[in-house]
Amino acid sequence: MLKTISIIGLGAMGTALANALIDAGNRTTVWNRTAARADALVARGAHRAETVGEAIAASDLIVLCLTDYVAVEATLAEVAPMLAGKTVINLTNGRPDEVRAVATRLGGHGARYLDGGIMATPPMIGTPDAFILYSGSSDAFETAQEQLAAFGQSHYLGEDPILAAVSDLALLSAMYGLFGGYLHATALAGSVGFTARQFLPLVEPWLAAMMTALPDYAERIDSGDHARDVMSNLAMQSAAISNIVATSRSQGIDPAFMEPIERLAQKRLAGGFGSDEISGIIKAMRGKEDAGLSR
Amino acid sequence: MLKTISIIGLGAMGTALANALIDAGNRTTVWNRTAARADALVARGAHRAETVGEAIAASDLIVLCLTDYVAVEATLAEVAPMLAGKTVINLTNGRPDEVRAVATRLGGHGARYLDGGIMATPPMIGTPDAFILYSGSSDAFETAQEQLAAFGQSHYLGEDPILAAVSDLALLSAMYGLFGGYLHATALAGSVGFTARQFLPLVEPWLAAMMTALPDYAERIDSGDHARDVMSNLAMQSAAISNIVATSRSQGIDPAFMEPIERLAQKRLAGGFGSDEISGIIKAMRGKEDAGLSR
Ligand SMILES: NC(=O)c1ccc[n+]([C@@H]2O[C@H](COP(=O)([O-])OP(=O)(O)OC[C@H]3O[C@@H](n4cnc5c(N)ncnc54)[C@H](OP(=O)(O)O)[C@@H]3O)[C@@H](O)[C@H]2O)c1
Ligand SMILES: NC(=O)c1ccc[n+]([C@@H]2O[C@H](COP(=O)([O-])OP(=O)(O)OC[C@H]3O[C@@H](n4cnc5c(N)ncnc54)[C@H](OP(=O)(O)O)[C@@H]3O)[C@@H](O)[C@H]2O)c1
Repeated sequence: MLKTISIIGLGAMGTALANALIDAGNRTTVWNRTAARADALVARGAHRAETVGEAIAASDLIVLCLTDYVAVEATLAEVAPMLAGKTVINLTNGRPDEVRAVATRLGGHGARYLDGGIMATPPMIGTPDAFILYSGSSDAFETAQEQLAAFGQSHYLGEDPILAAVSDLALLSAMYGLFGGYLHATALAGSVGFTARQFLPLVEPWLAAMMTALPDYAERIDSGDHARDVMSNLAMQSAAISNIVATSRSQGIDPAFMEPIERLAQKRLAGGFGSDEISGIIKAMRGKEDAGLSR
Repeated sequence: MLKTISIIGLGAMGTALANALIDAGNRTTVWNRTAARADALVARGAHRAETVGEAIAASDLIVLCLTDYVAVEATLAEVAPMLAGKTVINLTNGRPDEVRAVATRLGGHGARYLDGGIMATPPMIGTPDAFILYSGSSDAFETAQEQLAAFGQSHYLGEDPILAAVSDLALLSAMYGLFGGYLHATALAGSVGFTARQFLPLVEPWLAAMMTALPDYAERIDSGDHARDVMSNLAMQSAAISNIVATSRSQGIDPAFMEPIERLAQKRLAGGFGSDEISGIIKAMRGKEDAGLSR
């Protein structure tokens, strides 16, 4: 059975979401601040709402996908009371304080609020590689689940609406580590004449091989034991990290990206953890815990 | 035909190298500052050298694998003249200035010098996943190639001895981006109650999916065009990065690891590149180029 659904925000991601809903046979209403961005979707059968209010009135299920929560607040400012009794799914990237504020406000207007974090690029939407984290109203999730499946795999994390946003930001920080490291590496290799395409066949298998260390790190993190069966001790790694920072500088590459890792490693080293695995630096990242001075 | 080879330095890595050589049937002589670390290798058939000089005298092929170049200098200080006519393969992590100094000094003593960077952890040595970068004397590489194959795949990069060291440090910076990002992510997810093992099934496929972006980034970097067909624009990503930094802080996680990426993104944004892909921040990393202010 076809259901109606409205999408507010047709940037790169909102457009991909709307296309996936249309492909899955949903009656889809679309709205975007810059109206022209709806044209291609309307040509594919979407219904164009002339105003946000019209988009909200058209469906019981409202999906938001905007740049940030400033845009969400601006877009909903005048129409929030219209959301009473509706299910609102906000897939905009945000901080937990922002999520809580919007969840509380829309809840106060009688809406069921589900927050989400999209773990995919727009071309991945609708493929098995895409997954979306959700948290907040479980009623909302159950109501919408079938339609949300058009986007990719759904992971419902719990009633607390901030769970999806914090997990999303966590996953993004892993991605930015990967991307920042790749870009730094490519800049450094470029300083001795390698093009990015020449460097790619080295860095891709290398990163894939190093990914296999993560399950061991996860066990060490949960047990707190970074000292057993060490194969790559921190003293040796700290020396290599300092070589990276110094060499980046001497090769004309901004060492900024590598400096925090150097500081964290040195902090742990100064704390007496030179024989530990590098996974132990998570203790220096957790300010509340021990700043690297105790296990 | 069996050949003789000497390994100087039996830490985690030197031990793995020595074991691989023994497994491949080489007559292997070993030396380590702390002599007891040779015991297990001697039990497997290695010949124990009582002094560095004895290790050098025993073979025409000498492999060094120590913590750093300070250790290399200390170990070779008195025996360098004995290296005349020998092939020296230094697999110790180092900076290009250190590599050049050792290459020049040992060359002056009549040794053929090959520098190397091991892209593997000790358990990977001898498996198809291990690869070693080499640069320096091509004669040395050709002489040793067959024996070096016991360690993993060999990549000879050229006559300039610094090529392997800089490429090694470049690959390590990609790895530390991956590891730093993973640890930051796991700390942040931990702040809302996820154990590292619970978070692993999210972060592993996520990173594997994001790895597929690298070939596109490589093309953009080589062409200098970060503006075509953009799916995840920098303005949107910069907002997400700032959300990560602010949320790390509010959740009690040291934001240090993410701050350089935030600064680099903001620099590019201020330069007018908000519609570019994030790969464009490599231009802000290359100090000499444009500090993010021109394409
Ligand atoms: N693209 C990705 O790879 C990706 C991946 C995962 C998650 N996300 C998340 O998805 C969300 C949208 O990203 P995107 O890639 O679609 O960004 P985008 O292409 O830059 O689109 C931004 C959207 O927000 C709208 N907007 C911005 N400010 C507004 C305001 N004050 N009032 C009304 N509308 C406003 C824009 O409308 P106009 O067209 O009128 O400017 C546009 O529809 C972000 O939270 C992002 O973190 C994106
Ligand atoms: N382990 C890895 O995952 C890995 C991966 C790739 C590359 N590497 C590289 O391989 C090299 C060795 O690493 P490792 O993991 O084997 O380190 P390790 O386990 O800490 O061993 C260090 C070795 O260096 C020796 N050493 C240190 N200072 C010395 C000095 N002043 N004089 C003489 N010997 C000295 C140690 O001798 P003692 O036993 O007497 O202390 C020991 O043999 C490093 O350059 C590292 O970057 C390691």
